[in-house]
Amino acid sequence: MSEMLVVGSIGIDTLHVHNKKHEGVLGGSATYGALAGSLFSKVQLVGVVGQDFPDEVVQKLRDRGVDVQGLEVTTGKTFHWEGRYADDFSSRETLATELNVLADFQPKVPEAYRKTQYVMLGNIMPHLQISVLDQMEGPSFVIADTMNFWIDSKREDLERLLERVHVLVINDEEARQLARVHNLVHAGRVLQKMGPSMVIVKKGEHGALLFDNEELFSAAALPLDHVADPTGAGDSFAGGMLGYLAQTGETNHDALRRAVIYGTVAASFCVEGVGIERLTDVSAKDIDDRFEQVRRLVHFS
Amino acid sequence: MSEMLVVGSIGIDTLHVHNKKHEGVLGGSATYGALAGSLFSKVQLVGVVGQDFPDEVVQKLRDRGVDVQGLEVTTGKTFHWEGRYADDFSSRETLATELNVLADFQPKVPEAYRKTQYVMLGNIMPHLQISVLDQMEGPSFVIADTMNFWIDSKREDLERLLERVHVLVINDEEARQLARVHNLVHAGRVLQKMGPSMVIVKKGEHGALLFDNEELFSAAALPLDHVADPTGAGDSFAGGMLGYLAQTGETNHDALRRAVIYGTVAASFCVEGVGIERLTDVSAKDIDDRFEQVRRLVHFS
Repeated sequence: MSEMLVVGSIGIDTLHVHNKKHEGVLGGSATYGALAGSLFSKVQLVGVVGQDFPDEVVQKLRDRGVDVQGLEVTTGKTFHWEGRYADDFSSRETLATELNVLADFQPKVPEAYRKTQYVMLGNIMPHLQISVLDQMEGPSFVIADTMNFWIDSKREDLERLLERVHVLVINDEEARQLARVHNLVHAGRVLQKMGPSMVIVKKGEHGALLFDNEELFSAAALPLDHVADPTGAGDSFAGGMLGYLAQTGETNHDALRRAVIYGTVAASFCVEGVGIERLTDVSAKDIDDRFEQVRRLVHFS
Repeated sequence: MSEMLVVGSIGIDTLHVHNKKHEGVLGGSATYGALAGSLFSKVQLVGVVGQDFPDEVVQKLRDRGVDVQGLEVTTGKTFHWEGRYADDFSSRETLATELNVLADFQPKVPEAYRKTQYVMLGNIMPHLQISVLDQMEGPSFVIADTMNFWIDSKREDLERLLERVHVLVINDEEARQLARVHNLVHAGRVLQKMGPSMVIVKKGEHGALLFDNEELFSAAALPLDHVADPTGAGDSFAGGMLGYLAQTGETNHDALRRAVIYGTVAASFCVEGVGIERLTDVSAKDIDDRFEQVRRLVHFS
């Protein structure tokens, strides 16, 4: 089993779901990515929090096998996001974004992490994602996520980043926006030409598409009869996927397809709880069962 | 091989796609359903057209193995629909609907069709779908489609119909509307309780979900790099699906899953051409190849 490194945002969120307000919820792309990754592999975390960040949360991460040597605690408050979801989760409204200590974040990769081969660059400013790669000693497998805001405002940085990653994980609307093409098949191919040899287009409840150098792979998402909170689903997908690859040490086409399914499995657990509550309460058997459930879901003879 | 009967609308459409206007395009739910069904099975058509309906189109249907004994030609003009699609096919605008001879349609099932076991009730006024069942001698497998307009305006008729069909084929938004539940898994289960033991929720480019008495089945749609015209995709799905079942004479769970895939295959051909042009130009090998392509698309080991 190899380690994986996760960098991204770490935050304390306030979430409004189903007319209920949840305060002090641990969030951020690195948090979800690390916890999902930890279902499969040892995880090294690089991120920044403020002095208000609860010690018991750090301990919770440690308990899940997350190495927090790269977790920087600095003067100020932890990044905060507040959002409200529509009852049907078809949209969400951002009520507050307070960057706080994230505004001056300069990721520092500890010496002990620099040879790690599997790297997840969670959603964060693209030039910071690049600065992490600059500190690494040639990782063999780098997954990056991004968001519409950076595509709009930091396209050049993003394009430089894409030349250095192996897998871009991106949602369908952002894939269209970044590729400047509406048809998803074309968009995936355009994004591959921008650098990453593999592109995974996340379609939320509709699953994901994997573009590599072989035939297209369409992964179904598990239709869930209850969604508690969609926050972190995409980050859990990327973290779970990379965690599986780090665990097995394989990155061939068949392993990738399985990894995409493990990513959807991790995301399905994530959305069943508010914040990280379900993701930190998943057994190896739960994961295996759900993987087999996806297999039965799509099987035809 | 058994026959299948298709009833529904038959129209002459005007379509605006990709800034091009196509006039005199053969359309209607029965037309697409019959032509897709004819890829697999003998088809009996029940519908009405006006005196303006071109003889060569009737011949075209005959050439595809469609029995047109139930095609009524009456005084007046054929049903006409005109619509414009957004460039990305995310929406469409109806520019004209002229019911014409469809306004007074009373489906008459020819004597020779009354023992047919496989019946597709294409989208049309629900009381007319019921009147077809009243004329049949206990068909063993009835698929019905409907639309938002009837859910709004003819819910009671629709509920009476649902008690008498085996499979409801419905798109995701309409499933939510008819079931009055947002979550799709719940909606499917609610619809099953309204009568049909099987419910298929069509999700367009995202595939379809099959609810029966076994575990849920999620069928991927083929990601297409070119869509010429989405008109008739849903009707082609239902027709292709029923045609496959009629061809094989099986309706067990495994056959149903395969039938759903054949439905998505028929729909994928449908949208590659304007109107029926691609659907009438498909070989048995094309169908087999695409079925195998779907298998590879979703396979993981």
